[in-house]
Amino acid sequence: MPYIDTVALDEQNSALVIIDQTQLPNEEIKLTLTEQNDIWKAIQTLQVRGAPAIGIAASIGLYLAAKETNAENYSTFIDEVKAAKEYLASSRPTAVNLFWALDRMEKVALNHRDKSVTEIKDLMRDEAVKIKNEDELVCRSIGEHGLSLIKDGWGILTHCNAGRLAASKYGTALAPVYIGHERGYKLKVFVDETRPLLQGARLTAYELMSAGIDTTLICDNMASQVMKNGWVQVVFTGADRVAANGDACNKIGTSGVAVLAKHYGIPFYICAPTSTVDMRSATGADIPIEERDAAEVTEMWYKERMAPEGVKVYNPAFDCTGNELITAIITEHGIVKPPFNEGLLKMIDNGR
Amino acid sequence: MPYIDTVALDEQNSALVIIDQTQLPNEEIKLTLTEQNDIWKAIQTLQVRGAPAIGIAASIGLYLAAKETNAENYSTFIDEVKAAKEYLASSRPTAVNLFWALDRMEKVALNHRDKSVTEIKDLMRDEAVKIKNEDELVCRSIGEHGLSLIKDGWGILTHCNAGRLAASKYGTALAPVYIGHERGYKLKVFVDETRPLLQGARLTAYELMSAGIDTTLICDNMASQVMKNGWVQVVFTGADRVAANGDACNKIGTSGVAVLAKHYGIPFYICAPTSTVDMRSATGADIPIEERDAAEVTEMWYKERMAPEGVKVYNPAFDCTGNELITAIITEHGIVKPPFNEGLLKMIDNGR
Repeated sequence: MPYIDTVALDEQNSALVIIDQTQLPNEEIKLTLTEQNDIWKAIQTLQVRGAPAIGIAASIGLYLAAKETNAENYSTFIDEVKAAKEYLASSRPTAVNLFWALDRMEKVALNHRDKSVTEIKDLMRDEAVKIKNEDELVCRSIGEHGLSLIKDGWGILTHCNAGRLAASKYGTALAPVYIGHERGYKLKVFVDETRPLLQGARLTAYELMSAGIDTTLICDNMASQVMKNGWVQVVFTGADRVAANGDACNKIGTSGVAVLAKHYGIPFYICAPTSTVDMRSATGADIPIEERDAAEVTEMWYKERMAPEGVKVYNPAFDCTGNELITAIITEHGIVKPPFNEGLLKMIDNGR
Repeated sequence: MPYIDTVALDEQNSALVIIDQTQLPNEEIKLTLTEQNDIWKAIQTLQVRGAPAIGIAASIGLYLAAKETNAENYSTFIDEVKAAKEYLASSRPTAVNLFWALDRMEKVALNHRDKSVTEIKDLMRDEAVKIKNEDELVCRSIGEHGLSLIKDGWGILTHCNAGRLAASKYGTALAPVYIGHERGYKLKVFVDETRPLLQGARLTAYELMSAGIDTTLICDNMASQVMKNGWVQVVFTGADRVAANGDACNKIGTSGVAVLAKHYGIPFYICAPTSTVDMRSATGADIPIEERDAAEVTEMWYKERMAPEGVKVYNPAFDCTGNELITAIITEHGIVKPPFNEGLLKMIDNGR
């Protein structure tokens, strides 16, 4: 199956290369970004999106910022790195991987103050590449754990895009599907289109079909009927931030899918690397929810107005699924069942 | 507030006049239809939609068919009426008001075989006008009953359009809102946009805003978050067909809203005239569900492709909400609580 490299450092170590996800599925356009404000904008406008992919993009972004400083001493250098970190961190508020990756990158600079600026730049490049490479292994591991929970022939429902376009190679929520497919499982995936920005229709349907997987696109409000029809045996979604108690913040609509899954007796799994777990957020209520422009709802992908002029719009980009609705959280270190506090702590410790 | 006459017989008794609902909210275009295939197409393509409005359009359509026959004797006349009835009935399968209205119109012709063809034509015109006028009273009555269930200041969530564009004057699900508004209630209405055809965004938001009512548009998948925020005290939706046991078939997504309402402890009411109750459908499983063109989902109101070429799509236009999720059904004759079988029978008897 064709491998789409969603986010990468170019071979000259001089640019962030991404697929412009706002143009999919109609056009596959590679963007080569070198300026900090272009990288910031790429994250903010969702040219690159998905919690793990945002983390990778930001870490490459911060490496490029560090690389391009003319700072000759450590003190000037670290000030510039911190300023660049703060700037990139302001691009989106919800996905914790952004902050997690930037923290990791900053730590490299902080922990090697004894080295030359040039050496630190090289170490930061290595760290950014490592973050990306680790993500691929993490996704594979999530896929293996997820696959242990499903059977050949099952119907799977997913919301938004937590596939290879949101992460490295296998994605998170779609990793069990890709690995199952490689092993000959016949899986049927029902894809919520995911309004307002249609990541399901544009991205998930695109990448699953490219991989030759049986894909059926539905509007978000059809999930209830699809479940009632008995077509779905399991729900997998990603997460942008998981609180210490297991409340999971993910693309708007995820909590509704979880309520439906509970009602219809279908297991609901969050697939997320431990880097998405934020132990500093005690519950979902501590996670900031980004609200985005009303035009995303009223003007249908910015082309034509589909609602009356001046209508009030509520457009939260995420919602929080209460831990009572989550069957388990699938991490790279294993499957966490309730009570989540304890289990998530253990998983994070496993990773140390 | 401006009165939008959704569907009417023109003053010369020679045409069906409708607002082309596919052009709202951008343009308010009146269509004057005289040909049977234009009337059929108007129903099929949703230029006129909403169970009560479809019923009225079909009854006017059948009157026009009857009026235009050159039949000189009853036997030829009734054959042509039956053929026209069958043709109009084939326009859409789910809303029972279509069949109910056509049956009422046919009965006029069947019950007056002793009269001249000209006299029967006049009686059929009177019946079509009566169906429309009755609908206005029915909507007002549903509104009064519905209003008795809500309080000033409440937040109301609705799905699709069951307002004045779907019926006469007050609509069904929006009738309590309009009557409450007339009496000075400050109500906040949250409007599901209602994919794929966006009746909520295009029609409900439009008509509520025209009436000066506090309206907030959301994507369907945001309803869970809006309920979790505590902004919604009651859900009102219409229905296209209610089975004898109270299972209610309505716009796709309604059953999901009902599941959410139950989860969040919010009362969920179906607002429907008794003409929408089909005692011949024992349960929701007996109601045929229309499936519509995939392009409605993939090509965003027919303008631009938003999903990969060739993607499979499941596009049911309706779903059935199980009676266990319905707090009560509000009819023009009163509020029916579970068990519904008995209560619905009583309401239908009340109307006789």
